[in-house]
Amino acid sequence: MKGGLAVLVPIEEARTLILGAVRGSGSEPVPLDRAWGRILREPLVAADHQPPFDRSAMDGFAVPALPPAGPWRCVRTITAGEIAGAPLEAGTCAAVNTGAALPAATARVVPVEWTCREGDIITTDRPLGPDYIRRCGADCRKGDLLIRSGTRLDSPEIAVLAQHGAVHPQVAALPRIVHLVAGDELVEACDEPGDGRMRDTNSPMVRALVRETLGGAGTLVSLRSGDDPEAQVEMLQQSGITHTPVLILSGGAWKSDRDNGAALLERLGYAWLFRGVDLRPGKPFSAAGRDGRLAFLVPGNPVAHWVTWHLFIRPALQAMMGAGTDPVLMEVPLGRDWNPGPETRVLRWPCRLRFTPEGPRADPLELASSGDLSGLAGANALLHHVPVDRPLSAGRPVTVQILRCP
Amino acid sequence: MKGGLAVLVPIEEARTLILGAVRGSGSEPVPLDRAWGRILREPLVAADHQPPFDRSAMDGFAVPALPPAGPWRCVRTITAGEIAGAPLEAGTCAAVNTGAALPAATARVVPVEWTCREGDIITTDRPLGPDYIRRCGADCRKGDLLIRSGTRLDSPEIAVLAQHGAVHPQVAALPRIVHLVAGDELVEACDEPGDGRMRDTNSPMVRALVRETLGGAGTLVSLRSGDDPEAQVEMLQQSGITHTPVLILSGGAWKSDRDNGAALLERLGYAWLFRGVDLRPGKPFSAAGRDGRLAFLVPGNPVAHWVTWHLFIRPALQAMMGAGTDPVLMEVPLGRDWNPGPETRVLRWPCRLRFTPEGPRADPLELASSGDLSGLAGANALLHHVPVDRPLSAGRPVTVQILRCP
Repeated sequence: MKGGLAVLVPIEEARTLILGAVRGSGSEPVPLDRAWGRILREPLVAADHQPPFDRSAMDGFAVPALPPAGPWRCVRTITAGEIAGAPLEAGTCAAVNTGAALPAATARVVPVEWTCREGDIITTDRPLGPDYIRRCGADCRKGDLLIRSGTRLDSPEIAVLAQHGAVHPQVAALPRIVHLVAGDELVEACDEPGDGRMRDTNSPMVRALVRETLGGAGTLVSLRSGDDPEAQVEMLQQSGITHTPVLILSGGAWKSDRDNGAALLERLGYAWLFRGVDLRPGKPFSAAGRDGRLAFLVPGNPVAHWVTWHLFIRPALQAMMGAGTDPVLMEVPLGRDWNPGPETRVLRWPCRLRFTPEGPRADPLELASSGDLSGLAGANALLHHVPVDRPLSAGRPVTVQILRCP
Repeated sequence: MKGGLAVLVPIEEARTLILGAVRGSGSEPVPLDRAWGRILREPLVAADHQPPFDRSAMDGFAVPALPPAGPWRCVRTITAGEIAGAPLEAGTCAAVNTGAALPAATARVVPVEWTCREGDIITTDRPLGPDYIRRCGADCRKGDLLIRSGTRLDSPEIAVLAQHGAVHPQVAALPRIVHLVAGDELVEACDEPGDGRMRDTNSPMVRALVRETLGGAGTLVSLRSGDDPEAQVEMLQQSGITHTPVLILSGGAWKSDRDNGAALLERLGYAWLFRGVDLRPGKPFSAAGRDGRLAFLVPGNPVAHWVTWHLFIRPALQAMMGAGTDPVLMEVPLGRDWNPGPETRVLRWPCRLRFTPEGPRADPLELASSGDLSGLAGANALLHHVPVDRPLSAGRPVTVQILRCP
């Protein structure tokens, strides 16, 4: 399969080939305060009933069944955090505040604003309302499944883990990634490029994508090289490539007669999963595997980088961590006229999903080519499009894949 | 306004009062690799044309206008990163690879696969196609506005900043936040609660919410206290509350006769913006200001915490950082039957927005009360609902506010 890109696989087949070659990244416990954004790798099962005891839902008086409408003699006060103590006796009550444990024989809580107090005698002229008791186990019962393995941990899940004392949850280990950007024409973003050269934008972009995808970037190694294959091999071997589950090669020379990146992967012992995808932008995107490790060959154009990351690399990383990989799709009207041009390949075009009072709208970004990075600012979705050689009008429904929150 | 919650302000009025009291957090430069998730506080204006020179879009031969169909004598090779050198002369051409700078007088690039080479003579039998030149300035021109101030920086924007050498962008400073969780009944999440006590879930939840909202949690101070006001005042003064722009008080005793949190804010010199909102869950939520600093009094129930954070505290923090504050709203069908009960207050109910092949669906979470934390796992949106005392059927359109990506 050396050389050209004669057989372009469809996008779905490429995804399937990649996901079939994925190995799990394993798991590790992390302190709860560092678990945000990570993927839970064990189910959270309720350790106890919640609430663990009957609690008052109001500030007021815990009263027994008799007499049903009072009066009651207030014999004690139970504040939140105190032990409820002995059962209520008929004709007596306890002052309670919200969250306080209720003593046995409590029939209901009468809110303080519905009562009159003279000395220690409490009366009410209100009819019986709700009981204002938060019952033991009303929220969840011991053994209930609360969070599935594979869930990404955000604020609600962090709070539920805390409630059940799961302060060192097992989360997916972050897969180690080596990213090599090759190209004699590239300089660091902090340098002046000078004649004929360009700033490397793929290294910072991939660092940001890793952070978005993994909830942290601690396991990424960013490398830069020129086009010399010997130097590239040495650099990769020094980076510990033989025990790195994900290798990403960006750019380099994609000429049919040199094909540095492809030759490099073959030399490192990887076998092709596919060479090239029926896709614009990103046609030369290729994937290879070796002993459960994956390598991705990514065309150097930054827009192709961004698109193929979301279509292929992100799902691979999610699968390694045990998270879901299905794209989030929605049909929305085009926000403006759009002419995809005389296109013969399947398009996954960066677009901006806007939420307007009339509903969501998809604005395809105005990128004349996949090298047009500037227009990528603001992209938050991919427009899915099969080739039709005619302009599309604003309002026409299109399928978009949502990539990040607006 | 001490004591009860007689005047409940509408949600929109509460938001307006809060946003009117916000002061900007200022800005600071950060290294580009630490800018992900931060809010840009300066516009990015193109420093140069992009591409900065005419580049080849293919591997092939740069040819002059004459002769239009060849043959040409190949007189040199220009690889990406090299200086283009002298203008092309008629009848000659230069071998170029993708990204290489093109010499003056280049009329087009003939892709290598369309050519034959004998010695240094290049011929083609293909008709003239596209010119395969990425023109200087085709992507953007010097002075173009590329990213607006107030934009949250994700992978596309990080790459565009890198392209223009903006490796220390000015971003919004993260506002310092002091969060005090009060309650004698609370223990740390790592401790066993024992009789009558509960684990504190609001501290870890707020740490996660701060991280979600600010793109980092470095400026948050988490405090926990019992219900003793003296101890609370001392703790807050030691935390430097007089120079802290945001104070959040969670829980404590909300009794009409003690009202710890409210009394505490008054004692610290804050003046009320409002006391209580027409909202469920979260009715007692209140806000106060002093000298451009804000304080929020948040009901201790974790679901009320989560809801009021998104409705009020998140927009306040976004406004401080110069980011947009409009909620992201969408109308979607209910995914299941839902009975909000005999409700007289405006609802903002946690729900799960699901993307199905038939379109998005909103599933209201099954929370019997705002203390039902367990059911909050998976929440990613708020269902907006005005009170109607009847069950709603699956399929009925409702308005949801999207809070995080699915």
